[in-house]
Amino acid sequence: MTLEEVINEVLQNIRPTEEERAFVHSLMDELKEVARGTAEGLGLDVNPYFVGSTAKDTYLAGDHDFDLFLAFPIDTPIEELREKGLELGTAIAEKLDSYEIAYAEHPYVRARYKGVKVDLVPCYDVKDWKDVRTAVDRSILHTKWVNENLKGRNDEVRLLKRFLKGINAYGSEIYVRGFSGYLAEILVIKYGSFLEVLKNADFMLRQKVIDPGNWLRKEYETAMKTVKREAEEDRPLVVIDPVDPRRNVAANLSWEKFGRFYFKARGFIEGPSAEFFFPSERGIGNYLEELRRKGTHLLTLTFDKPNLIDDILLPQLERSARGFERALSREDFTVLGWDVGHSGGKAFIMLELDRLERERVRIKPGPEFFTERGWDFYRKNERVWLVGKRLYAEKKTDEHIVDILGKLLEKNQVAMGKGIREKVKRAEILLDYVPKELEKEAYLFLSREKWGLRE
Amino acid sequence: MTLEEVINEVLQNIRPTEEERAFVHSLMDELKEVARGTAEGLGLDVNPYFVGSTAKDTYLAGDHDFDLFLAFPIDTPIEELREKGLELGTAIAEKLDSYEIAYAEHPYVRARYKGVKVDLVPCYDVKDWKDVRTAVDRSILHTKWVNENLKGRNDEVRLLKRFLKGINAYGSEIYVRGFSGYLAEILVIKYGSFLEVLKNADFMLRQKVIDPGNWLRKEYETAMKTVKREAEEDRPLVVIDPVDPRRNVAANLSWEKFGRFYFKARGFIEGPSAEFFFPSERGIGNYLEELRRKGTHLLTLTFDKPNLIDDILLPQLERSARGFERALSREDFTVLGWDVGHSGGKAFIMLELDRLERERVRIKPGPEFFTERGWDFYRKNERVWLVGKRLYAEKKTDEHIVDILGKLLEKNQVAMGKGIREKVKRAEILLDYVPKELEKEAYLFLSREKWGLRE
Repeated sequence: MTLEEVINEVLQNIRPTEEERAFVHSLMDELKEVARGTAEGLGLDVNPYFVGSTAKDTYLAGDHDFDLFLAFPIDTPIEELREKGLELGTAIAEKLDSYEIAYAEHPYVRARYKGVKVDLVPCYDVKDWKDVRTAVDRSILHTKWVNENLKGRNDEVRLLKRFLKGINAYGSEIYVRGFSGYLAEILVIKYGSFLEVLKNADFMLRQKVIDPGNWLRKEYETAMKTVKREAEEDRPLVVIDPVDPRRNVAANLSWEKFGRFYFKARGFIEGPSAEFFFPSERGIGNYLEELRRKGTHLLTLTFDKPNLIDDILLPQLERSARGFERALSREDFTVLGWDVGHSGGKAFIMLELDRLERERVRIKPGPEFFTERGWDFYRKNERVWLVGKRLYAEKKTDEHIVDILGKLLEKNQVAMGKGIREKVKRAEILLDYVPKELEKEAYLFLSREKWGLRE
Repeated sequence: MTLEEVINEVLQNIRPTEEERAFVHSLMDELKEVARGTAEGLGLDVNPYFVGSTAKDTYLAGDHDFDLFLAFPIDTPIEELREKGLELGTAIAEKLDSYEIAYAEHPYVRARYKGVKVDLVPCYDVKDWKDVRTAVDRSILHTKWVNENLKGRNDEVRLLKRFLKGINAYGSEIYVRGFSGYLAEILVIKYGSFLEVLKNADFMLRQKVIDPGNWLRKEYETAMKTVKREAEEDRPLVVIDPVDPRRNVAANLSWEKFGRFYFKARGFIEGPSAEFFFPSERGIGNYLEELRRKGTHLLTLTFDKPNLIDDILLPQLERSARGFERALSREDFTVLGWDVGHSGGKAFIMLELDRLERERVRIKPGPEFFTERGWDFYRKNERVWLVGKRLYAEKKTDEHIVDILGKLLEKNQVAMGKGIREKVKRAEILLDYVPKELEKEAYLFLSREKWGLRE
């Protein structure tokens, strides 16, 4: 099939029907009314705004959740925003089907109405980036900017989003580190179309800085600071937020995910196929067979997931995994790779090793023999010999990885995220075996399909 | 026992009896007569000299071989020396019990007479180091110098020689690299007695240069050249030959053997015992038990001993062993040590390894993905993934040491003494097993008793 044919076929599946579109609009009007009425009823000067993909009409067919932001005047004290915001959210939700309280920077309400998820999020009614006070305040500006600049290329955004989902590079959450919806919109606006974005995968990397808001002209100092900071962080892209020169929209985009996009973009152009958008579920292999095939070993540390959000926990697990990698290399083990995460209430660190046992003795090099330290070495050690002018001795060592790990942890010789140090020290150690709920993860890790560029 | 008691006891065993001494002298007179007569009979202007320990009366009881040097005028052409020298030697030997032709720099005759070995060696009748033309010419000067300077301390030399034999540091042959008899004699002359030599073990090392012939005064230029050259070679000692400023008498003394002397000297002074002179035969352990104890592995390459003298063969075997050490380390094996030599017509290289198998795959790091080489890497490899901006791929490798060695040799990736390269390539490879005749060697190597400072 040609590019056009594939794209048209995919569009059939991701473009909302007239019915869905109509439903979404009526629902938005209805919800806005309810919100406005409820606010007035409570005597609150609050403007309701819809943000997110539904508000921008860039949502994928069947995926139309609502983000209804309740914007308070910017002179409202933060505590009042919190309190009244939750009160108002709850009052609105009372008129819908069901709801619960969720927590981000501030508590907010997650309601459901007519089968649709509706987040009711209090924020400040900012008109300008200088007013931004909380993390969510920008959303209103984002929505406004996209709607002003998208100029009917909504389907192009849908294609790009679906493509990114298909290649598993969509979402800016810490455990994904991919492209956010807003970033996808900016790229389409910048390059003109889905295909142009793909064709520019290499160029945007070399260009590095994307500045759709022309901040480098309007706010040189601030924008330059952002560019410098993000360049030092070695981000693949620095996309200066068109609504806030202090922010890199691609700050959470990892090299791995950009790399996937980079290869898949070219792959799609050279061999167009709907598979990129809707990959057929890959069969998960058996991790034990992988171990046999590779002749390597899997060491897994698991412990109860600490009560930390992923943004905190995952970096700490990664730091710990790197710590184990360094410590074990010093002990003559080869760490072929590592993987971290959590699943079913259990956090885990997986290490792929070349072996589980090492020789029982090590050769300990000593000083030159004709020194005072030479005499000490000679006296202290039982088996001593010379190679050239240097003394050597045999040193008994632990042979098995579990004993070695135990010693390392006991002596705090493993660099670790301190938030989890204690838990890791008491972690359960599994060798060449993982519990059911980790089997898939183990396979994806050992086969490297987790980060693979083929499939 | 006190030092004196031990020394006296030892002397009883190493000082030749009056009978032995008388026998030696009569034999020397007899042989000298035969030599002189035979030379005249052949019309040769040759002076017979006795050299070596019998000529210096520093031989150990029961160990009295003869070196009878046949000294030709220094204007004799070298070919004539060769030819006539062999002719004369043979003619003399005809009058003794039996003989054979041996080869060093020149052919010479090894005869036996009344149960004593007699070497008949042609050389030049040099009076001065400037006349020295062949390697053996110096011996006459050595004998003369020792006899002029020893001043009755012959037994002190005997003690030192026996001590050096006892601690396995006697002999300047390449496969020993210990103290020569001449060096022992010089040290006694320099420090005055056996005990003084031992007490000065540390001092002589720091002093480094020993110049009993005062060459640094008489022939500064030449002597200094020797000192510089030998210091650059990092010899433990530079003993300028009292009969030739161009030569370091200790040139073949290794750090290992000097180190043994260093520790044993102090050990003997702190705890005198005849054991140092006559160590009781140590029981040889089982090399397989050593392997089990250490949890290591023994890889042995054996092949028919090439027809090379040790001075050539052993350095080549050592170079090859080091080559294997480097090559195998690059392949992720740990080489804990190596040993070379030959026994029973078989040359061998032994390597102690941490393991015989390694993982079946290796992680191959590639270039950064956004490069042309990145694309090649992506195309060429089947399993490819990203870590950061860098591409990685899995690479199948040989798992077993034998396959790995085979490939390394085939591709000439092992640095080797070229004289033996071809033989090594076709060597027999033994794992955790050696033939009977190498079992002792294997044990001494694996236990490091071969170079050990205890026992």
